[in-house]
This record gives sequence, C-alpha cells and structure tokens, in this order.
Amino acid sequence: MYNAKAYSAASATAPLASTTIPRRDTTDRDVQIEILYCGICHSDLHTVRNEWESVMPTVYPCVPGHEIVGRVVKVGSAVTKFKPGDLAGVGCLVDSDHTCPNCRADVEQLCPNATFTYNSPDKHLEGITYGGYSDSIVVDEHFVLRVPANLDLAGVAPLLCAGITTYSPMRRWGVTTGTKVGVVGLGGLGHMGVKLARAFGAHVAVFTTSPGKKEDALRLGAHEVIISTNAEEMQQHAGSFDFILDTIAAEHDINAYITMLGRDGNLTLVGAPEKPLAVSAFGLLFGRRSLSGSLIGGLKETQEMLDFCGAHNITADVEVIPIQKVNEAYERLLKSDVKYRFSIDMASLKSE
Amino acid sequence: MYNAKAYSAASATAPLASTTIPRRDTTDRDVQIEILYCGICHSDLHTVRNEWESVMPTVYPCVPGHEIVGRVVKVGSAVTKFKPGDLAGVGCLVDSDHTCPNCRADVEQLCPNATFTYNSPDKHLEGITYGGYSDSIVVDEHFVLRVPANLDLAGVAPLLCAGITTYSPMRRWGVTTGTKVGVVGLGGLGHMGVKLARAFGAHVAVFTTSPGKKEDALRLGAHEVIISTNAEEMQQHAGSFDFILDTIAAEHDINAYITMLGRDGNLTLVGAPEKPLAVSAFGLLFGRRSLSGSLIGGLKETQEMLDFCGAHNITADVEVIPIQKVNEAYERLLKSDVKYRFSIDMASLKSE
Repeated sequence: MYNAKAYSAASATAPLASTTIPRRDTTDRDVQIEILYCGICHSDLHTVRNEWESVMPTVYPCVPGHEIVGRVVKVGSAVTKFKPGDLAGVGCLVDSDHTCPNCRADVEQLCPNATFTYNSPDKHLEGITYGGYSDSIVVDEHFVLRVPANLDLAGVAPLLCAGITTYSPMRRWGVTTGTKVGVVGLGGLGHMGVKLARAFGAHVAVFTTSPGKKEDALRLGAHEVIISTNAEEMQQHAGSFDFILDTIAAEHDINAYITMLGRDGNLTLVGAPEKPLAVSAFGLLFGRRSLSGSLIGGLKETQEMLDFCGAHNITADVEVIPIQKVNEAYERLLKSDVKYRFSIDMASLKSE
Repeated sequence: MYNAKAYSAASATAPLASTTIPRRDTTDRDVQIEILYCGICHSDLHTVRNEWESVMPTVYPCVPGHEIVGRVVKVGSAVTKFKPGDLAGVGCLVDSDHTCPNCRADVEQLCPNATFTYNSPDKHLEGITYGGYSDSIVVDEHFVLRVPANLDLAGVAPLLCAGITTYSPMRRWGVTTGTKVGVVGLGGLGHMGVKLARAFGAHVAVFTTSPGKKEDALRLGAHEVIISTNAEEMQQHAGSFDFILDTIAAEHDINAYITMLGRDGNLTLVGAPEKPLAVSAFGLLFGRRSLSGSLIGGLKETQEMLDFCGAHNITADVEVIPIQKVNEAYERLLKSDVKYRFSIDMASLKSE
C-alpha cells in the first residue's frame, strides 16, 4: 500500500476537502496511473450527497470521479497492454467477475458483480473503492483503456463516461451515414451525442427548450435545432427520426419525442428520471417504435469509442478547473452552468 | 352494385341485427368473395359500441368483422392471383395508397391513407366500408390473401387479425429456435402467440394471474406457466427472457415484465391500454432492454404467416357460432368467456 492525495467528502452534507487515501501496490495484473485530469459527472454529485441512498447508499469518506485520464507509472509483471509512460484512461468500472454471460459478451457494465470506480466494495483493500479525484490510482489492466496521443487530455477525460454512454446506444441502434438522429438535451451527455452522431455521418437535430442554445448546437455539429416548446416546429418533424438519444434525467413528456420517430425508430434513454415515465402505448404501436435504455458500455466498446474519437479528433468541450474549485463547480453543475463538462486539472492537487 | 346480407348495428346501444348492404361490382382489380367464416375480434365490439369515439368515431349502420375467410366467386379482368373457387382471406385492411414509404416497404398497415375493412371511408361507394359479418365482400386483390387448403376454415379466420398481430412482432424481434419467449395474457391474441412461438422453436412461458389456465396453456404449446402474482416464481425468472409478447389491453404493471427480460431483451405491446403505462427508466437501462409496440402486419407478411400456419398446421382455437348468437357472444367476450375466439359460420346468414 501507498498513500495518494485525494479530495473526499466526509458526509452527505460536507464539502469535498483534501485528504490522503490508501492505494494498493500493483499486483501482477495491475497498472498504476498518475492521474492528470478527471471529469466531473453528475453521478459524482449524486453519490457525494447520498442522493441514490435507496439503491446504492454512499459510504464515507467518499472520493468520486470516473472520468480519469493519466499516465502509466508502473505495471505488474503480467501486464501486456501498457508500459510506464503510456497514456491511460479509466471509466466507471475497475473490475467484474469475468465469467458471467455479460462479461463473456464484453458488456461488463451489466455484470452482477461489477466493481465501480468509486463507492463499490473493494476486493483488494478493506472498505470501498476510491475514484479519480486523486493523484494516483491502481487498476486491473483489463479495465484500463489506451488513449489516443493526438487528443487534448482535459477533453478526453469525459469520454470515459459521457462519451461511451452516448456512443454505445448509437452504435447498437445502427446510427450511420444518412440516419436522422435527434438529441434531447444539450448538456454533458447531449453535446457528446451531437459530436458523435455527426461523426457517424448522421443528420443531427437537437431538441431543446432554450432558443439560446441554437448557435452552440450548430457549432457542436448539429444540422438543425428544434425548439421543443414550439408545437408547429415539432409537428413538422413528427414521424421523421430514425433514432433519438434522450439525455434528460428530469421528468419530461417522453411521448412528444416518441411521436417524432419514424417507422421502426428507437428512442434510447441514457438519463434516468427518478419517477416512472408515462408512456402511451399508441405511440409505440403506430410505427412499431421502440423505447429503450442504455448504460455506459463495456471495455471493448469503450476502447473502440476512444479510437474512434482519436481518428475523428473528438473530445468533450471542457472547462478546466483546479481541484480547489470542485465544490463551486458542483453548485454550478446544479444550474447547468458549464459548457459542457468540468475537467479537474490534477496538477492542482500537488499544492495540497 | 349488388346487395349482400349482413348484420349491422344501428347505433352504439343497438344490438347487431339482420340487414342488407350494397357491395360494389368487381372492378378489373377486384375479387368477389363468398364469406364462409368471420372471427369476432375485440375491436369489433369497441367499434360497434363507439368506444373509440375520440380517435375513430363509428359511423352507423356499422358492419364489423375483419377476420374473413371465404371462397372466390368472381374476379376482375386484371386479377392474376385468384380464380373462382379459390379459398381467400381478408384481414384488417382493404386498401392503401400504394405509394407512400410504408406501402413501398410492405407495411401497408402504417400507410397514412389505409382503408380499414370496416368503418373507414369507402373509395368506391359512398359512406364507409362494411366488414365481414356478411355473406359477401369485394376487395382489391392486393388485399386478398391465399389460404392454405389443409386448414380448418373456421379456425383460419382469426389468423387474419390475431394471427398476424402476434406473428409480426415475433418475426421482427428474431424469435427462433432456442429463444425464450414469454406471453402475457392467454386470450385470443395470447393463445396465438403461444402456438406461433412454439412453432418457431422457442421455449415458451405463459404469464397469467389464473392458475386455472395452466393446463390449457400447456396443451396449446407452452413449456411452462408462471403465475404473475407469485413473487417467488417471478423472481426465479427475472432477467431470463429474450422476448415477451404483452397482449393485455387493460392497465397493468409493465415493469414487472420488463424486469423479466434479459440483456437486449424486448417486450412488445400488441394490446393498447387506454391510459399511459408507467415505465421505470431503470428497468430499461439495466439490461439495455427495449419496449415496443406492433400493429397487425403488412400484406406480404400476412401471406407469409398464413403459409407458415399451413405448413405447421396452425389455426386458432375457435367456438363456432351462428350469426344469430353474435350479441350473446359479445357479452361473453366481455367476460373472457371464450376459448379462444368466436368464429361466425356465415351459412347461418342464409336463413335471414
């Protein structure tokens, strides 16, 4: 074991503050990474404040962060993919059982025994796993991703969660050249959805309630912007979409978007509204439409996504902050006051 | 024009009674059919009683019936598929615009200008179309199906609606040898779902609230029966289904069935509950599951279904009644007191 610097929350109501956490020594299969940037995902905030208590209560102290990019400093003797000096990424998962049908099908995110990057029972040390708001992490090489060398690292970090969350369902539902894709909501997930859909060759429309977001949506790659509160505009596009990516976690009228789908169209939820959605059966029957959900992606697909982003020069639009501003960033996140993801420059942790 | 015998309702509260209706003379493309049997679909009752007033108000007099089987008596000069003496079937559609993207893709049921077999504006005569509770009908040959000669005709009639409604989504979602299929509800649609899924080579389970239906479900081809009110039984099957066909039109807890699906599993609704369904996003996210709807099928697929039923000797289980018992049959339908579909023997109309 060695000590790493980190920021942790001592309780659901405490701010994140500087601390020291134990990390395990590298085993044969492990990669030790010096963390350079870590994105701030809304899940970090939910966990820190114990807002998912009913499904996954938070154990304190809590060190969040699962959009990690850094440089390899040490590898175990059995590690083949990495050597010291390599760039490396870590997303939402750091382990799984490797043997269940989901692991064998490369969808480790659905493994019933998956270990999440933070707030998950730690198989090596006592207690729970600690995430990426830290200067160092040790991870089994199967859960470490190769990072293309041509990309801005601060903007790469959010690809590990926001990137794969939007990439995976679009691949699964066949988004490609000529597909008409709608993206509902233009936040951390939505802006990645726009960039990726555009790179897949799709015709991309953003649905938003805010006319003020139009210019930025077009800059990010959207071909058009539909103001969802404008009934006439919505009517013009009814029945015309092949695929819609719904990134809204708040309660909203899902039927308004389902009726935007054409025959055999699919709407995939990547946000999870707390209350059940009121879904009209008629909207699904007329058009053979489908509604589905998607949850991050497996390791193989996450690597595919990073390689795709490298080839197409895609990163998240980030506001880089020092870790000392993380509590302020959380408050701004609650107001959607960020374009479009915070990325913590972990060099700032050296001064703590 | 010529006159045909029929049973019609004069208003939403009147019983069906004997009447005479006009049928057009065969045009070049038409097939005139002597109707031998007509199934009773729940839609007939909804329409006769104007229960779908908000979406499709009923025009009276109303002659329902869209599960029609009979014998060709006359064909137009351009008709190539049929000759007098052939068996023939007619389902829910008698015309469409032939030019829209849905028609060109052989999914005429989604054509925005489709003409339904009854209560739809008639392009040839004034007023609305009259359905199969009649001794004769004239239909464009594109909307007339070939009927395999080896099947019991009374049991063929319901294939034209209940058969294709359940066949189409199972084909679309890839039900085949080894697929684990669940059928929710064992009525007119459900019993066809069981027979067809079994013939596709699937492992078939019926979900029902009625332990009394177990024996019959097994006789129809189910491998097992799951009592949906038994939490323990349900838990044993959680996450194990590839496809679930939900035939329940009443309000019910859809999430209980969504969680029965395994990874990438699909649940298709073929019943349409009036109120929106309360769908938990979490059930869809964890497992990348999907929820969809399906509406009858196109003409090409309906023919494929009939040919499949001919090859596998599949018909609906019917209770054959004379047309004079149709009002009584409607009352029994409301109590689900039929195994599993009424089929009207149209020879009974000769005495009217």
